[in-house]
This record gives sequence, C-alpha cells and structure tokens, in this order.
Amino acid sequence: MRIRTLTIVGVGLIGGSVGLAAKRRGLAEHVIGVGRQELSLERAKARGAIDEACLDLTTAAHKADVAVFCTPVDLIAEQVLAAAPSSRPGTLFTDAGSTKAAILEKVEGRMPEGVAFVGSHPLAGSEKKGPEHADANLFEGRLTIVTKTARTDTEALARTADFWRSLGSRVRVMNPVEHDESLAFTSHMPHLVSAALASVLPAELQDLTASGFRDTTRIAAGDPAIWSAIFAQNREAILAAVDRLDNHISSFRRALENGDWPGVLELLTRAKEARDALGN
Amino acid sequence: MRIRTLTIVGVGLIGGSVGLAAKRRGLAEHVIGVGRQELSLERAKARGAIDEACLDLTTAAHKADVAVFCTPVDLIAEQVLAAAPSSRPGTLFTDAGSTKAAILEKVEGRMPEGVAFVGSHPLAGSEKKGPEHADANLFEGRLTIVTKTARTDTEALARTADFWRSLGSRVRVMNPVEHDESLAFTSHMPHLVSAALASVLPAELQDLTASGFRDTTRIAAGDPAIWSAIFAQNREAILAAVDRLDNHISSFRRALENGDWPGVLELLTRAKEARDALGN
Repeated sequence: MRIRTLTIVGVGLIGGSVGLAAKRRGLAEHVIGVGRQELSLERAKARGAIDEACLDLTTAAHKADVAVFCTPVDLIAEQVLAAAPSSRPGTLFTDAGSTKAAILEKVEGRMPEGVAFVGSHPLAGSEKKGPEHADANLFEGRLTIVTKTARTDTEALARTADFWRSLGSRVRVMNPVEHDESLAFTSHMPHLVSAALASVLPAELQDLTASGFRDTTRIAAGDPAIWSAIFAQNREAILAAVDRLDNHISSFRRALENGDWPGVLELLTRAKEARDALGN
Repeated sequence: MRIRTLTIVGVGLIGGSVGLAAKRRGLAEHVIGVGRQELSLERAKARGAIDEACLDLTTAAHKADVAVFCTPVDLIAEQVLAAAPSSRPGTLFTDAGSTKAAILEKVEGRMPEGVAFVGSHPLAGSEKKGPEHADANLFEGRLTIVTKTARTDTEALARTADFWRSLGSRVRVMNPVEHDESLAFTSHMPHLVSAALASVLPAELQDLTASGFRDTTRIAAGDPAIWSAIFAQNREAILAAVDRLDNHISSFRRALENGDWPGVLELLTRAKEARDALGN
C-alpha cells in the first residue's frame, strides 16, 4: 500500500503514532494533521508525526486519499459526516475509536457515493496522551480490529486492513457489536474497576502502595473525557461485564466469609491460569 | 550495621533479594539459606544470594545473629517458634510477611529470654517467584513497615529498622493491626479484584487484551498458595475493603444506568486524580 496524502484527524498519542509509523514505513508521501489547537498540531509537526498542520477539516479531507479519525469516540461520527462531502471519490475513511457500533450506526448510509467509511480499532495505547507520547512502533505486532457489516464495501475493507498492516499491525475482521461486547470485557469494564480501585484508596495510604497497586490502577490515569465517552457508547455491554465481575467477587467474598480456604485457593488458581495464558 | 551470620529462611524472590542485597552492601559476612528443597537452595547459591545451604532450621538458627523469615505467612509463626529455642541470646528474628497481626499474636510472649522477634513487611515484590527473580536492588528506595506492639523490645525494633535500611529501604514503624487494615486496601483487596478480573475474561477473548488488561491483572499471576494464606490471615479487613470497592463500583453502575454522564465524568476525574497522586 502507498498513500499520496494521509489525513489524520486528532493528532494525540494514537494519531501521532499513526503519523510516525506511516512516515517511518514509507506508507504515506504526505501527512496532514487536523486539530482545533494550533499549538498541539505544531507539537505533532515538531515530533515528525505530520508534515502539514491544518485547522480546517474540510480542506484536509479534500486533499486526503486516506483519512483516519483518531478523536474521542463521541466526536468521530459527526466529524466523518462533516468531512465526507468535501472528499474526492475513492477516498477511504477509517478511525481508531474504542467503540464501534454507535459510530457505524450514525455513519452508515450517510456517506457520499464513492467514499467509504470502515470502522477500525487498534488495540494499542496507554494512559498517556498527546503527540509527545506518540510511538512509531505502537502498532507493531498488535492487533487491529476492522469492522464489517452488511453494508461494508469489500474493497474498502481490504484497503483498511492493508492500511493497519502497513503500520505493523495484525488485523482481525469483526462485527461492530461483537467488537463492543468483547472490548467491554477486555478494556472498558477493567477501566471502570481500575478507576474504582484508585478512588477507594484512602489518601493517607498512598505511601503504602507498591508496584502491584500501581499496575492494577495504571489505566485509571487515562483521560476522563475520552473514557466517559466510551462508557456512554457501550453502556449495556459494560454493565453486563460489571455484573459478571460482581458475581465473581461475590464468590471470593463467600469463600472468605465461610473460611473456605480450599475454595479460595481454587479461585486464585483459576485466576493465575487465566492470567498466565496471556503472557507478559 | 554489620552482621556476622545472617540466616534467611525461605530463599525465593524476597529471601533471595535479602541475601543478594546483604552481600552486595556488605551487611552480612556469611549468609545461610534455609529451605526444604536442596535444589532450590542450590539455585539460590548459584545466584549468589546465599553462601551456605542448610536443610535444618535449628542448626541454621543456632548459627544466626539475625534470622529473617521469608516464607508464606501461614508458616512464619510456627517456624519462628521452632527455631527460637536453638538460637543464642541476642539473636534478632524478623520476617517479610504480608500480614502482621496473626503472626505477632502467635509469636509474642513465646520467644526465649534474650531472643526478640520484630515483625516486618517490605513493600516490594512481584508476581514472580523463585531465587532466579531475586534482585539486589529490590528494596532500594522502597518502604518497609516494621511493627511495634506494647511488648516490642525497643532495641530490637531499632536493630530491625537498621537491618532494612541497610538493604536500601525506607522504614516506617506501625502497629500490626493498622498494618493489616492498610494493606487490605493497598494490596490484598486489589489482588482479589485483579484475580476476579482475570477469571471473568472469556477464554476466546484472550487475543483481544492489550497492555491495559495485562497491567490490571498482572498480580493475579501471583502464587495462589501464598495469597490464600494472606487472605486467611487478614480476612476481616479484606472483606471490609471489598465492601468499599463494591460501593464504589455501584456508584459507577448507577451513573451508567441513569445515563448520568457528568456523574461518570466526575467519578473518572476523581479516579485519575487519585492515581496521578501515586506517580508511576
């Protein structure tokens, strides 16, 4: 794959990493970064993540051969719909949002003739934000979900998969609803729990935390605005996953209350097996 | 501080790190490792964590000027009481167990004249085990809790604090019950929650986890036997901490159910502030 002009809307940690990887790997000749704040675009440019900064979405959309939206999930659909009418036929639109069904619902059927939108979600990132933390290797060996619905254009789907592979990622095609239900378990509900853990720590006990507590709550430092938008778009699946977790915590609680130590040992053994299966 | 013979009972990650740090820093002239398995003692010796391997606790206790027990919390009290009668007057006993009140209750008042036991807990470690993962710098800059009760000998307390400081640690003196209640929040309850998170992940979704899930569940890979013993010794405080977490998860759940997005944003903002206060 070879892109003449790649437009990245939202040049934070993810968007900046897309830009760095696209340039490092020779995927794009010219990279335009779109944002609302000149200063943050300049930082992205200084970092080498984009060649050109642009405050106007429609201008940048018109120049794009591929446009990737790396903004918070509650903004993606409206930005795609605002940009699409200015784009040229054959342009591919995709995104990097952590939810997929709500975005696809709003966008599908509303794109201009010849312009395709395919939903994506690279499973990579961090609790940090901003182009300063962008990393050309962020997608290397990681998995990107590319979504397929009854309306997805087959050629656009293949191009989207190629795009992420060209950035170093592995790709899996999935239905958006299945994506959202899965990510509720692997990312969204764990974020909620991690936030709850960080919050219930009495302030006077901060000094008594060690690496275990810090690992367990690391993601709670993520941007609250980004995460509340994710929670809003995937509410049902997250609530279902919270229920499953609650049930499991209750099993632990009952075993502790009953002094059922073989039961506790078994619960911990099952957890260790599950965690060991993930590797580092 | 300078120790002629340091005896370490249980030469795993913690005991091995005590040995490596004691030798690297010139704290002990001779380090004896005590264990039940010759093979694991040989690994500790090969690693340079101990000078001498000993399968017999009483022999090693007799030679010790300082003896530190780095075994699972359900074994420490009985091992201390088994070793103490063989030790010479002036010997200092301490430990590295993650719970303190139950151990102190069993040991205090039962030590021979002139032999002191002071409870300790270095807030350092990892989900890994074995002397292969021992680290001479494990205690560097970390906090060790040294416990004080009405019966604690003042000089022994000072020597214990010196011991951990000589290994690179900072030291805080605390009551054992306060220690256990605090650690329920900073370590034991988070371990339970991390284990529950790892367990509820459907196996077919393992490929869809990224660094966030892995961080949040890292400690769930800890040794189930070690952790079930900790849970047994600190049951009440852990259950109280689980209740507090449950309440907080319920606040999130209500906000999600009611579509109260400013409420969700505020909960996430509070969590981020709490996590940011901890540093990396």
